[in-house]
Amino acid sequence: MDFPGRSVSRRSMLAGAAVGVVAPAALASSAAAQPPQKGAVRKITMYAEALPGGLYGYGLAPGQASVPGPVLEIWEGDTLEITLVNNTDKRLSIHPHGVDYSTESDGSPLNDSFNDPGETRTYTWRTRPNFKAHGNLWMPGSAGYWHYHDHAMGTDHGTVGLQKGLYGALIVRRRGDLLPDRQFTCVFNDMTINNKVAPDTPMFEANHGERVEFIAIGHGNQPHTFHLHAHRWADNRTGMLEGPNDPSQVIDNKDLNPGGSFGFQVIAGEGVGPGAWMYHCHVQFHSDGGMAGVFLVRNRDGSMPPGAQEAIDRFRHHQHHPHSAHN
Amino acid sequence: MDFPGRSVSRRSMLAGAAVGVVAPAALASSAAAQPPQKGAVRKITMYAEALPGGLYGYGLAPGQASVPGPVLEIWEGDTLEITLVNNTDKRLSIHPHGVDYSTESDGSPLNDSFNDPGETRTYTWRTRPNFKAHGNLWMPGSAGYWHYHDHAMGTDHGTVGLQKGLYGALIVRRRGDLLPDRQFTCVFNDMTINNKVAPDTPMFEANHGERVEFIAIGHGNQPHTFHLHAHRWADNRTGMLEGPNDPSQVIDNKDLNPGGSFGFQVIAGEGVGPGAWMYHCHVQFHSDGGMAGVFLVRNRDGSMPPGAQEAIDRFRHHQHHPHSAHN
Amino acid sequence: MDFPGRSVSRRSMLAGAAVGVVAPAALASSAAAQPPQKGAVRKITMYAEALPGGLYGYGLAPGQASVPGPVLEIWEGDTLEITLVNNTDKRLSIHPHGVDYSTESDGSPLNDSFNDPGETRTYTWRTRPNFKAHGNLWMPGSAGYWHYHDHAMGTDHGTVGLQKGLYGALIVRRRGDLLPDRQFTCVFNDMTINNKVAPDTPMFEANHGERVEFIAIGHGNQPHTFHLHAHRWADNRTGMLEGPNDPSQVIDNKDLNPGGSFGFQVIAGEGVGPGAWMYHCHVQFHSDGGMAGVFLVRNRDGSMPPGAQEAIDRFRHHQHHPHSAHN
Repeated sequence: MDFPGRSVSRRSMLAGAAVGVVAPAALASSAAAQPPQKGAVRKITMYAEALPGGLYGYGLAPGQASVPGPVLEIWEGDTLEITLVNNTDKRLSIHPHGVDYSTESDGSPLNDSFNDPGETRTYTWRTRPNFKAHGNLWMPGSAGYWHYHDHAMGTDHGTVGLQKGLYGALIVRRRGDLLPDRQFTCVFNDMTINNKVAPDTPMFEANHGERVEFIAIGHGNQPHTFHLHAHRWADNRTGMLEGPNDPSQVIDNKDLNPGGSFGFQVIAGEGVGPGAWMYHCHVQFHSDGGMAGVFLVRNRDGSMPPGAQEAIDRFRHHQHHPHSAHN
Repeated sequence: MDFPGRSVSRRSMLAGAAVGVVAPAALASSAAAQPPQKGAVRKITMYAEALPGGLYGYGLAPGQASVPGPVLEIWEGDTLEITLVNNTDKRLSIHPHGVDYSTESDGSPLNDSFNDPGETRTYTWRTRPNFKAHGNLWMPGSAGYWHYHDHAMGTDHGTVGLQKGLYGALIVRRRGDLLPDRQFTCVFNDMTINNKVAPDTPMFEANHGERVEFIAIGHGNQPHTFHLHAHRWADNRTGMLEGPNDPSQVIDNKDLNPGGSFGFQVIAGEGVGPGAWMYHCHVQFHSDGGMAGVFLVRNRDGSMPPGAQEAIDRFRHHQHHPHSAHN
Repeated sequence: MDFPGRSVSRRSMLAGAAVGVVAPAALASSAAAQPPQKGAVRKITMYAEALPGGLYGYGLAPGQASVPGPVLEIWEGDTLEITLVNNTDKRLSIHPHGVDYSTESDGSPLNDSFNDPGETRTYTWRTRPNFKAHGNLWMPGSAGYWHYHDHAMGTDHGTVGLQKGLYGALIVRRRGDLLPDRQFTCVFNDMTINNKVAPDTPMFEANHGERVEFIAIGHGNQPHTFHLHAHRWADNRTGMLEGPNDPSQVIDNKDLNPGGSFGFQVIAGEGVGPGAWMYHCHVQFHSDGGMAGVFLVRNRDGSMPPGAQEAIDRFRHHQHHPHSAHN
């Protein structure tokens, strides 16, 4: 059994190295999340590095930068201190969505908050739960499927950094949230997925029945819509219904535009069985142009289901010749 | 009284022909939906055909293909078996959103799931209710305003089939959902509505006080926003508030992008009276270019309200000369 | 203390002039809104005027037209009668979102509802609360963050009027809604914010701890995403959670496309402190091209926090040279 595309190993590694980022996947998937301590301060070091092909990435150790960067997960109430080492020759930063930070951690040139080439700088992100405002109205807490990205390379909005891969997922978990067995970061960045086009887009792999979490992020200049075959989710905070009367729309296609993000969990292959299921941008010239990939749901024992290898071979060899006619 | 644009007659016909597709509009509109049996298997045959003007359509009998195709409605829990007869000389398929299907019913070339020219093939779609995952978290069921479309003509994503009309609405009803008197499918497909531009876009007609259901679907390459004059709905599963404390935003303009769909019900003319009400894409050069139509709310007895015919005449003769100045 | 960009003074003025538009900001911000009377009919006169630079605006008195126009606020249940005086030489109108109106108040050429040059015409907008439809289903009321705009200048969809500034915010409050200390209208109109580009975009100002309301509106031809640094809101009707179990997603970036609108309230600087916080379109070439501005959160006493003036100076002098490289 081989899971080259999955990111769980990276999360487990974080836990093993005790760098302070919660790795809830180590817990049983059916258990509600119970953070080990409340309001902890977690400290990590991240390294921004140049990568082959003109790309840049964030990593949790020197030489380990990737596109997208590592999934950062914390509990609502925690503080995350990131010491960012800029091992490139460009100005860059790290700017988060969804969490609290002072101007010096804004990650924007506006607030003089960035790393010059070679510079090391610490950014502090805080989180907090919902709190009551008045009557039945509550101010929202930090829990959510968020993301982080450069805000300083190339322009004051980080346009070049984003083009070249400086982005990743940030999850703030609420006590009681369900934890996944596997998780996948899927970034629609201009005409690419994670700066790749088909057939080189990531193959997300899970076993039939595993709880899988997708974190979808949009960047760049193009409007997109994220579609996953044979699975669906609720259009709310968790992607699951919060009780049988949750009025949220259930969807399998959602707008994914620059700066936006959402996440959801599905049971891989539930009700549909294992197989090679497509995910893609539903804007037709985007999918035809290579914004498509495979969510491979293996059998429960990890073996390949009938037809899946053939589907993958078809994907690799026949797909994504834009506007060609096959009929 | 003449209702050329309404689709109810088509739904009633389905019920009359006993082809197995539920036609809840035959019931009283104020009654909650009560499916006649639970978990039924409903079987229909659909025909894909070439149409004048280079279009293609799906129909429920030979010679009856239309753009959009027929509204397919089932109850949550039902299974729909569609035997698709391809009476064209092109490769094509039928791919649904929102329901469960095995890889052989995926409708995608990736899974070798399509009809060659002249070929007949059966696709099976299953549905299921919400079920509890853990604590207060529930995995979402199938109920929703979905859609179906070709995924094989022209490219492996069905880009040519979509351009030429191979799409339609799919509704999965939940027990207790309210049933409409009339329903309208409105597909924003590139720069067209149902592959038409003004003044040839569909005129949706209802009587004042009737419960009207809109199913809005997006396709193609363009971002759109659907706006309906003088009516509004809740941005949730049903378009109505599920109780007085449902926090959903109430809207009258919603993004409608490729692969997306939503539905809602309004009482025609409620609080505003009968008349010729516009619906249109709110992207200005799209509406100016012809993505606009008339929702004609007649008097309660079906007669024309004052001014409506004049408005329709204006629509037919004066509108939609892009970027011209009338002032 | 100087608040050049704030709109509260304009709202207070409305209350002072007793023109009938509710100005809830005069109340304590922590109090739930209690309308002084139910179902009132409020009458105002608005003036459409030409402005320098080829713009047009709506105003509440002659010579006071602005871009955007004044914030109009009413209580759910109220009726607003607007006598629109067209002091321009162009055909124009006023068309609202979210409220009830008869065809003669539609504001569309389709319904012969517009002001010829020099003409005065009255438009009537009505509102109503939720009401029960069947079982647990309720038809939505009028409460919401809506907007109004021209629908007649240049084309039958008001494309020229919108390009040139004929738009504004419309708020329908529900009894019990929280009232803000300050409010800001932010219209993403093609490649501008309120028809301005950086560094001339509005600077929104508040003191640390004040309750601030943003009304975001989209117009024109472009897709946008609205992002606010260091603050977040719930993606529902009020932007606040309606109870601790409200499942709405919490966001800090939201699609803002033509004809759409949303609103939310934040406590300025809460959890993050005072400072110069950016708001911008997150479509990269839009922000680089000037769709960005500053939300200045002053100290609680109105004084400038450390670094804020420097940030503002940077914004004014260094930002928004599209696609230039600073590193």
